[in-house]
Amino acid sequence: MTFPGGELEFVDWITRQATDVNQVLEVAIGDDAAVQRVTPGQHVVVAKDVLMEGAHFEFETATPELAGRKALAVNLSDIAAMGARPVSAYIGLVLPKSRGIEFARRVDAGIRELADQYNVCIAGGDTNTWDGPLVISVTVLGEVAPKRAIRRSGAQPGDILFVSGPLGGSLASGRHLTFEPRLELGKQLSSACKTNAMMDISDGLALDCTRMLKASGVGVILDSKSIPIHTDVSSSLPAEQRLQHALHDGEDFELLVALPEVQVELLVDSQLSTPLHRIGRVTAEPGLYLRQQSGELKLLEPRGYEHQFK
Amino acid sequence: MTFPGGELEFVDWITRQATDVNQVLEVAIGDDAAVQRVTPGQHVVVAKDVLMEGAHFEFETATPELAGRKALAVNLSDIAAMGARPVSAYIGLVLPKSRGIEFARRVDAGIRELADQYNVCIAGGDTNTWDGPLVISVTVLGEVAPKRAIRRSGAQPGDILFVSGPLGGSLASGRHLTFEPRLELGKQLSSACKTNAMMDISDGLALDCTRMLKASGVGVILDSKSIPIHTDVSSSLPAEQRLQHALHDGEDFELLVALPEVQVELLVDSQLSTPLHRIGRVTAEPGLYLRQQSGELKLLEPRGYEHQFK
Repeated sequence: MTFPGGELEFVDWITRQATDVNQVLEVAIGDDAAVQRVTPGQHVVVAKDVLMEGAHFEFETATPELAGRKALAVNLSDIAAMGARPVSAYIGLVLPKSRGIEFARRVDAGIRELADQYNVCIAGGDTNTWDGPLVISVTVLGEVAPKRAIRRSGAQPGDILFVSGPLGGSLASGRHLTFEPRLELGKQLSSACKTNAMMDISDGLALDCTRMLKASGVGVILDSKSIPIHTDVSSSLPAEQRLQHALHDGEDFELLVALPEVQVELLVDSQLSTPLHRIGRVTAEPGLYLRQQSGELKLLEPRGYEHQFK
Repeated sequence: MTFPGGELEFVDWITRQATDVNQVLEVAIGDDAAVQRVTPGQHVVVAKDVLMEGAHFEFETATPELAGRKALAVNLSDIAAMGARPVSAYIGLVLPKSRGIEFARRVDAGIRELADQYNVCIAGGDTNTWDGPLVISVTVLGEVAPKRAIRRSGAQPGDILFVSGPLGGSLASGRHLTFEPRLELGKQLSSACKTNAMMDISDGLALDCTRMLKASGVGVILDSKSIPIHTDVSSSLPAEQRLQHALHDGEDFELLVALPEVQVELLVDSQLSTPLHRIGRVTAEPGLYLRQQSGELKLLEPRGYEHQFK
């Protein structure tokens, strides 16, 4: 144990940071478990993602604050993708002993800053130390009205497919550490119009699109001309290569949205917090196809995403 | 990636295991997040513990099933200590690539068997692989009526202190892998009588007792003659050494319970699922004292618990 004062001191410190939680919690951090009030009539939405140093972030490019931030942000992105409202976060930390307590505080500060920004209460968790790399396990609880959660399995033939922002180059540029979870947009798409299917893009448009169409029992034709490519993808690359980055890089954390065609006009009039980019159409015929510049359709093989840097 | 079929195959496999969850879940495992129904009028209880290979279990003594089982069991013990009912579990796995998919299935099977035993629904989670050791992060959601959760901070001077079973030798014997979380007892102590304070003993009676008395702003006198010592502590050791094991070994996962004296008679008549052992008394005077065989009081210094084997 190389923390000055040891693990217990950090747990004490983290406990003292818990403020303004009385509205959400009957029993706060510091007991065997937290007791959380649920808004009457609401369902609880639960997202859980575990992030590991060397896989989801590395300290050559990430600060401890950004690693902590990302661990919460990916979970908030999952809550956004359900059209839900985040309420509380439970943080499991496995801290490298060698990095000391200041490092732990910085990870926590990164989590807390993002939590404050989205009014999420840090409600509990578990802190451990070891000789291995940093692991951050975050569970976020949100709320949504019954039958208002937007699944990935509801896409219908004829739906128009949208994405909430340009894609590609996120890992290489570091954008995966600083992205804003699309919480406001997710809620708008749950309340302002009838959204048939929604999910966030974590493993690349091609793979995540395949997940949506398989869950929905449909197919998708993406229009290669319409896929927005992020400025993080070098403009000096050939067009085809730039498109590949947008399709496969992953870690974009934009929302992939399937809307009935009749909803699209409504959408234009509504004031969305993030503009949507129309990228394709849902088909009855299964399979993921890319409409190329030539007009020809090409079958897209989803690639398994392996977390790698550079 | 050395899994045959890779990580995605395991995620598919784990998703197919999800059965009979419709009562609890509106949206089950396989979407961005789960959507869970909450019994009207109930609060949600959230426990989160992260267990690491080499700290909380090691594969010289634990099977993969027992490692998985323990990761869920310690969280169920936390739910028990609140007097709550567990409902669902969310499992974050960080799997060592080198051990392959059969290992992952065995960890999952160990979790699932215990979940089935206590009617807990595996509702979601996250699965990753890396070159490091196994990490299992479990979040359990339970339910409890408003103001019925039993905190560790409610002990009152004059309360009688009980423990739900004999203590000591848990790590050395492997009992820490196979213990039964005291869920039935926890619920009985929440409904059958007025329990002032409760917590589970994970880091040793002395340290956890200190936590309870500090949270409650009281003191405790433990009666050395009354502390039940587990048969896992060698009977050939001197009495004083056996007592030290019971006080400090930890990983007992028994409940520590503070009851008003007037409740104790009621308790004798009630059919508790696990008998309680009376071990001491809560005092107004702060500090943790041990009444020795001689009758003298000795101040007990809480020791910081470091997870170690042997």
